Amino acid sequence: MTLLSNQAFDILRQIPLYVPGKPIQEVQRELGLASIVKLASNENPWGPTEAVKARLRKAVEGSSDEGLGLYPVSDGYYLRTAIARRRGLNVDQLILGNGSSEIIEMAAKAALVGGGSAVAPKHAFAIYGIATQTAGGRFIECPCSPTELDVDAILAAVQADTRVVFLGNPNNPTGVMLGREGLERLVRDLRDDILLVVDQAYAEYEDPETYPDAKAYLEERSNLLVLHTFSKIHALAALRIGYGIGHHKLLALLERVRSPFNTNMLAQAAAEVAIEDYAFEAMSRARNHEARQAFLKEAQEHRCQVTGMAGNFMLLESMLPAAELFKDLLRAGVIVRPMQGYGLPNHVRVTMGKPEEMDAFWAAITPILDNAGCGCR
Amino acid sequence: MTLLSNQAFDILRQIPLYVPGKPIQEVQRELGLASIVKLASNENPWGPTEAVKARLRKAVEGSSDEGLGLYPVSDGYYLRTAIARRRGLNVDQLILGNGSSEIIEMAAKAALVGGGSAVAPKHAFAIYGIATQTAGGRFIECPCSPTELDVDAILAAVQADTRVVFLGNPNNPTGVMLGREGLERLVRDLRDDILLVVDQAYAEYEDPETYPDAKAYLEERSNLLVLHTFSKIHALAALRIGYGIGHHKLLALLERVRSPFNTNMLAQAAAEVAIEDYAFEAMSRARNHEARQAFLKEAQEHRCQVTGMAGNFMLLESMLPAAELFKDLLRAGVIVRPMQGYGLPNHVRVTMGKPEEMDAFWAAITPILDNAGCGCR
Repeated sequence: MTLLSNQAFDILRQIPLYVPGKPIQEVQRELGLASIVKLASNENPWGPTEAVKARLRKAVEGSSDEGLGLYPVSDGYYLRTAIARRRGLNVDQLILGNGSSEIIEMAAKAALVGGGSAVAPKHAFAIYGIATQTAGGRFIECPCSPTELDVDAILAAVQADTRVVFLGNPNNPTGVMLGREGLERLVRDLRDDILLVVDQAYAEYEDPETYPDAKAYLEERSNLLVLHTFSKIHALAALRIGYGIGHHKLLALLERVRSPFNTNMLAQAAAEVAIEDYAFEAMSRARNHEARQAFLKEAQEHRCQVTGMAGNFMLLESMLPAAELFKDLLRAGVIVRPMQGYGLPNHVRVTMGKPEEMDAFWAAITPILDNAGCGCR
Repeated sequence: MTLLSNQAFDILRQIPLYVPGKPIQEVQRELGLASIVKLASNENPWGPTEAVKARLRKAVEGSSDEGLGLYPVSDGYYLRTAIARRRGLNVDQLILGNGSSEIIEMAAKAALVGGGSAVAPKHAFAIYGIATQTAGGRFIECPCSPTELDVDAILAAVQADTRVVFLGNPNNPTGVMLGREGLERLVRDLRDDILLVVDQAYAEYEDPETYPDAKAYLEERSNLLVLHTFSKIHALAALRIGYGIGHHKLLALLERVRSPFNTNMLAQAAAEVAIEDYAFEAMSRARNHEARQAFLKEAQEHRCQVTGMAGNFMLLESMLPAAELFKDLLRAGVIVRPMQGYGLPNHVRVTMGKPEEMDAFWAAITPILDNAGCGCR
């Protein structure tokens, strides 16, 4: 037997590969297009701010205690301090990740160390399942309609060996959200030996007055891990940085599976500035709200369905198979995210870009739908 | 039972924590010292170059296909292309990591997916053992003297269930190296169902004419993974980027455990420039060689032992316990790495810094050794 013929690797080969949004350069390379509009990865088109860029320029120049040649602060102490101040937390209630997706992986690895299963709703972020399987766990996808997160279905899916439950709130890619009552029921009715990961990557796009922040239950529940990212409203996706909030004893366990120096210095520096920028957040939230309203109106005019109204994206259902619509849009220079891999065969997910990007999207999709006989005009 | 009382977590609690070199800011915070010399993490004091900084400044400003708000190219296609060109490889023989330490973790995770053990020499990089245990594997530390890497000992330590062998060449923290004959024997005599990870993080500090590069065996062995980092001679430790070289089928397996977007955009951009900078590498190598020669001479004058002569660091053995010497040096504003956790009770590892930093080191250590009655003067 050689290494590559080892059948143990079949376990790896069965883990689905995450399919990221197509990068702009790749589309340019493959199709020879000069101008591309990317609405595929729920990035914030408005940032980052000049203050963040100024901080990065300073870090690139270096100083006696900060240089590109030096390792970053492994536990991100200074960024954690800044986040703690902004969010009203203690530093020891925070852990950083190379994107919040890395914290999802840490959570799966820690919770499933003795084996067991993880539960997440159907039509959710693919990393929940991939991280579970990579950690050697069994993944249970609980049946949920794309139009609603169903607490009873999630609780019913839990098995005796379940060690972790993942909930995106709002949920990507459907844009649906659990309200305060539903979230409270999940937090309180879930067995307290199960880790509950509430992924709030898109939380900042919701109204802070009414958003049901799972952080509210941290004092009563030590099995709760709340995730945020700097890749969405904070507009730092390129830098890879996110954070998890939880009981300090829970985070001490995650610390055992965190890689040393997992977050880079420039990401830490930029995020320290970004976390304080309330005005940029408010502006991004307002523009996103406007973009969603305009998108909804256009979608109705194009006789397309839209699912959910949370996050900085819209899930669009047409009469065309997602893969086909994706390819046709690509040829027209617009990258969206086809959702057939998420059990949504006729859906594409469209990030809310700048007004001119949304105009380009509708200009590209209109003839495609019309030619297929399912457009509006 | 609550989550935190779950005994499965004892597995995690038994995994040793990696202790990184103390960051400059932390020493400033704790000891109130203004001026600190850090010789603790084998960073390159000479970089990065102006060309790398210029590339980073451009990336911070952003462009139509590259912005801080956009996700990085997940598989680092463009950086892999640049590395392939420089190293005479195909793009599909390369995989990127968030530091080469992440590739060590990927290798452990993939190789140990069906269980089993990993072998590494005693007195080696701590991550080999930590990554093994985090992946659920059993770690076998093979008895090796700090002054020599012993191929027979490594081969003898291999068990029936061994799935991966780690070798640092040169080895950190001892600075010893396996020559061509020894490496060849390890590559050829190791069972070919075992993954052999040759960690060449410090390779570029050796003479390229005589260095026994494990890359030479890639054509005959598909169980070989060769690691390099941009954190050492390329002076990009803050950015977190490293690469692995191997058979494309082996890398396809590692791809299954690679996190999407594991390397950030600025690291990819900077490394694309750094990999082409032969002159900076040659300069760093020459300065490091001079620093090692000078260090050796000083060490002898101070009646201290030095182990190994490879890498950009020296392992210094004194009459003082490492932890004590470390603390005394810290109070004098010099950070080194105490090595008692590596089975080296009287050793500190000292990175080769700039001449003025090395002067500061000897100025700080001289009275400490003299006061303890084990100095030279």
